Amino acid sequence: MTNIPFSLELKVRDYECDMQGIVNHAVYLNYLECARHEFLLSKGLSFAELTARGVTIVVIRAELDYRQALRTGDKFQVTVSARQVSRLKLVFDQEISKLPEGKLMLQAQITATSINQRKRPYFPEELKALL
Amino acid sequence: MTNIPFSLELKVRDYECDMQGIVNHAVYLNYLECARHEFLLSKGLSFAELTARGVTIVVIRAELDYRQALRTGDKFQVTVSARQVSRLKLVFDQEISKLPEGKLMLQAQITATSINQRKRPYFPEELKALL
Amino acid sequence: MTNIPFSLELKVRDYECDMQGIVNHAVYLNYLECARHEFLLSKGLSFAELTARGVTIVVIRAELDYRQALRTGDKFQVTVSARQVSRLKLVFDQEISKLPEGKLMLQAQITATSINQRKRPYFPEELKALL
Amino acid sequence: MTNIPFSLELKVRDYECDMQGIVNHAVYLNYLECARHEFLLSKGLSFAELTARGVTIVVIRAELDYRQALRTGDKFQVTVSARQVSRLKLVFDQEISKLPEGKLMLQAQITATSINQRKRPYFPEELKALL
Repeated sequence: MTNIPFSLELKVRDYECDMQGIVNHAVYLNYLECARHEFLLSKGLSFAELTARGVTIVVIRAELDYRQALRTGDKFQVTVSARQVSRLKLVFDQEISKLPEGKLMLQAQITATSINQRKRPYFPEELKALL
Repeated sequence: MTNIPFSLELKVRDYECDMQGIVNHAVYLNYLECARHEFLLSKGLSFAELTARGVTIVVIRAELDYRQALRTGDKFQVTVSARQVSRLKLVFDQEISKLPEGKLMLQAQITATSINQRKRPYFPEELKALL
Repeated sequence: MTNIPFSLELKVRDYECDMQGIVNHAVYLNYLECARHEFLLSKGLSFAELTARGVTIVVIRAELDYRQALRTGDKFQVTVSARQVSRLKLVFDQEISKLPEGKLMLQAQITATSINQRKRPYFPEELKALL
Repeated sequence: MTNIPFSLELKVRDYECDMQGIVNHAVYLNYLECARHEFLLSKGLSFAELTARGVTIVVIRAELDYRQALRTGDKFQVTVSARQVSRLKLVFDQEISKLPEGKLMLQAQITATSINQRKRPYFPEELKALL
């Protein structure tokens, strides 16, 4: 049994590039979120539905290593895999690679937890599907 | 002589909030960049002019610790101080605190370097003004 | 009694500029929204509270005339005034002018209406405060 | 020979939705730009290359009619066709329709012109390929 991470293909949009002509560094967090939410969907979980039901998943830590900058016209792949690192915390290991050659552009570790309606952290049953 | 970090006051804009009603986690990188570029200006350096002259400052690592979420209507302060951590790398230590009470919302370490026109890292003379 | 429109001062953020080095044309809609929501607040109305109470104000038409482009470092003023144009529709007349000289950069007419929880348009009593 | 407009398929990203749970109205200008730039590419023109060569295409007027709001998870199609309306002006007629049913969500007319390096409007030879 292999352990291939979830993967989403995207393409740089020109408005995501800043005056340096490269994708602004903040935009990578958008790409990563986009891939995580598609990963959730692939496991039968909708971020929007979870939110509507009061299951609030929040990012509590992000570590991003920028290797190379994406540019206008670039196609890329965003991968996601999840692991539980403590009773309440999930880590999403993510990478962005340029297509078609697969050159690594960014590595990230995104740590998330859930907050219930009384703003207390907890680990929702649903998220076990990600592991 | 005191060592008070540079500080910028901003207010949450409603379009920066997502369906959870809180500021989307990617937007904090925009706030941090905004404060860094104002910090540069306060030292006589314009990010846009540096870029136009071929001095490309790039973020190579970002570490963000999200403590509490900013919400619609919140005013906040973003601080910046810079230190050189190696021959080629600057670290910006930054914090976001909610106003007026000063509650810490986010802590970040943003590591940057410069790339010359042949895409080689170097440490431009101008950036010494930040230290 | 004079009729001075509501006005908000902002400054261009570098990440709002695109590869042309000017503020991306979509960002002006953010500036305009920001000023309208501050205008609401000045009349005692919070967009977020209205939304939370099920009063959904939606833009149904936007007309934007771009005169000159804002650039990095520019300070500008966004004005707002509101008028009711039909039983269900409000028009916000808005202008963006560069500071300090007051040069007109953009003119806009934003038409809005409200949708109730059954997705039917109506004109909430609260919005009369804007007129 | 039919005259089918250029068309691009996209999917709503969750960070594009605001606290109302719908795509923020400013984001549609991003979608429209994205489709126009892909339309240019389909005609052998790269917006980024044009910009690098000093051919600056700018939006001078945008008219947007919002019919229905896109929501999280929605897939949609953005169409583009171009026509020259005066010596110096191009109009892009664009529509956004929800997939798979093709329900019309937004109609837009985006008027653009080009500015040369002395900031004078002109009509670059290259853009004739769009007509």
